[in-house]
Amino acid sequence: MDKVTVLGAGSWGTSLAIVLAENGHDCLLWSHREDQAKEINEQHTNAKYLPSVQLPTTLRATHILDDAVAHADVIVMAVPTKGIRETCQKMMKTLDRKILFVHVSKGIEPDSLLRISEIMREEIDEAFIEDIVVLSGPSHAEEVVLHHPTTVAAACENLASAERVQDLFMNQYFRIYTNTDVIGVEMGGALKNVIALAAGVTDGLGYGDNAKAALITRGLAEISRLGVKMGAEPLTFSGLAGMGDLIVTCTSVHSRNWRAGNMLGKGMTLQEVLDQMGMVVEGVRTTKGAHQLAEKYDVIMPITSALYEVLFEEQNATEGVEKLMQRMKTHEMAGFFE
Amino acid sequence: MDKVTVLGAGSWGTSLAIVLAENGHDCLLWSHREDQAKEINEQHTNAKYLPSVQLPTTLRATHILDDAVAHADVIVMAVPTKGIRETCQKMMKTLDRKILFVHVSKGIEPDSLLRISEIMREEIDEAFIEDIVVLSGPSHAEEVVLHHPTTVAAACENLASAERVQDLFMNQYFRIYTNTDVIGVEMGGALKNVIALAAGVTDGLGYGDNAKAALITRGLAEISRLGVKMGAEPLTFSGLAGMGDLIVTCTSVHSRNWRAGNMLGKGMTLQEVLDQMGMVVEGVRTTKGAHQLAEKYDVIMPITSALYEVLFEEQNATEGVEKLMQRMKTHEMAGFFE
Repeated sequence: MDKVTVLGAGSWGTSLAIVLAENGHDCLLWSHREDQAKEINEQHTNAKYLPSVQLPTTLRATHILDDAVAHADVIVMAVPTKGIRETCQKMMKTLDRKILFVHVSKGIEPDSLLRISEIMREEIDEAFIEDIVVLSGPSHAEEVVLHHPTTVAAACENLASAERVQDLFMNQYFRIYTNTDVIGVEMGGALKNVIALAAGVTDGLGYGDNAKAALITRGLAEISRLGVKMGAEPLTFSGLAGMGDLIVTCTSVHSRNWRAGNMLGKGMTLQEVLDQMGMVVEGVRTTKGAHQLAEKYDVIMPITSALYEVLFEEQNATEGVEKLMQRMKTHEMAGFFE
Repeated sequence: MDKVTVLGAGSWGTSLAIVLAENGHDCLLWSHREDQAKEINEQHTNAKYLPSVQLPTTLRATHILDDAVAHADVIVMAVPTKGIRETCQKMMKTLDRKILFVHVSKGIEPDSLLRISEIMREEIDEAFIEDIVVLSGPSHAEEVVLHHPTTVAAACENLASAERVQDLFMNQYFRIYTNTDVIGVEMGGALKNVIALAAGVTDGLGYGDNAKAALITRGLAEISRLGVKMGAEPLTFSGLAGMGDLIVTCTSVHSRNWRAGNMLGKGMTLQEVLDQMGMVVEGVRTTKGAHQLAEKYDVIMPITSALYEVLFEEQNATEGVEKLMQRMKTHEMAGFFE
């Protein structure tokens, strides 16, 4: 039995805390909102993020970050990508020992172009990092809480740390695969949101399943190209954190990024979409980061470029997709691997 | 303008004939049913297979195979996989010159374990074969007739023949990519039906999108392993005829194989499913062929094996999936590439 803290009581953080509590660990869930922590402790619910789910009574919550950090040997970071840096800075005020960090966030920081684990290493003193393990894969929170079979990858250069995280989370319905390719797992998780946005756009334009399957296929090819140039293993993109997560995100109406793209395809502006969603759409920020990375590493990413123009350069969505079709090469492998 | 015959007036054969007629070719469509040929010629409809679609008036049909064969320099084989051998034998009675054959069928012949182009070469005298090109990719007929953007691969060892087929079919909404990996394109198309059946089973059991994404991901890995042992290029399975077609087949309720699997997952027996479908379910025959190929080439294919037991050895579907979960390896790449 381990002492684990989960930082972030959104739907994914709460679901992971449930898994940990069900596995018998002493799990504390941190929410920055006092009323939400109180609801979890007293009602054993988190109605905003996981409506109609009854939480284990052994799962406790706090809104005091210092207490959350003091509780654990293992800290699971489940805050939005945008909040990673700030949360790490706040943790630094009380950290006084080595912690095994797990993060489940997906994104690339624009301008700095850092992956999540790189941001964490910038903000947390090395003396307090036992290791950082990334957990990623096709995993709607809504299905995990129903105990539907779910498989994810736990990646760390140090296999022993990945195996420790595997032991913490593994049970009958939640299967963890270890992997040592941190760059591949982080890039697969981040970049699939770009393709999910684009898939939403084509769906919004009414283009059908044939076009979407082609987009997903060519999308995976272009994010693999970039990932490999950054040092990832090509096979990782054929695995759970690459293709698996990409499929689930592009084909499910649960996906926020798909939904945002869908509204864009139906003619709304980016600002209108963001206003209507009222939630973080990671893929928008990540598209900017991916576009910058493509330039930095000199990788041709036609889908990312087309989406970037639609999001940030007022390119009309229909014209963007038409341009994408036109620029396709005629030999399949030429199109994929130029 | 070319003279092209399409053999088989099902939904896919008819859709391809429409594309060819729209591209200005002199296209003749063969149906084995006289009344269907008459309907196409007089009503310009094919109500059974493409309800509410108006066919081009330039598209003509015949039910006389000899006339259909005599018409063309290019013959597109769009008959069910089971009928390929017999149709080739019948053609041999009138063939008197070299023909460029295109086939769009997906399957593996049980026992002989031959691919479609291999069956054709067994039955058609080499003297009459200019070349055989396989056309395959994510392409619901229902979307092609609506001019939704669709991309497929045309594969032939001889690139010039693939390019000729590309020229025949290519237009604004129907994009053809050439490829020289015939084994990969044929195996990708055949084996995806096995995974689609299995995806239908998990959906029928109520397992959710996380499980299905994992199944598709690991399914592509196992069919790639087999294909590569048979001589295919690994990259083909990441392309349109591999991953692209797999995604569209596993995530669409249009797919016959998915629907059959879904009924199995809901508790029907194979015989009940086949009776209710009243149509060919290619994946059932292909599962037998794939299972035999896995043994022949000594490749571990956990999903194919589990499905084989459910289809042919009265394994209960729930237990089959549970077994599949249990046998999963704990290191991701070990699971994929053992």
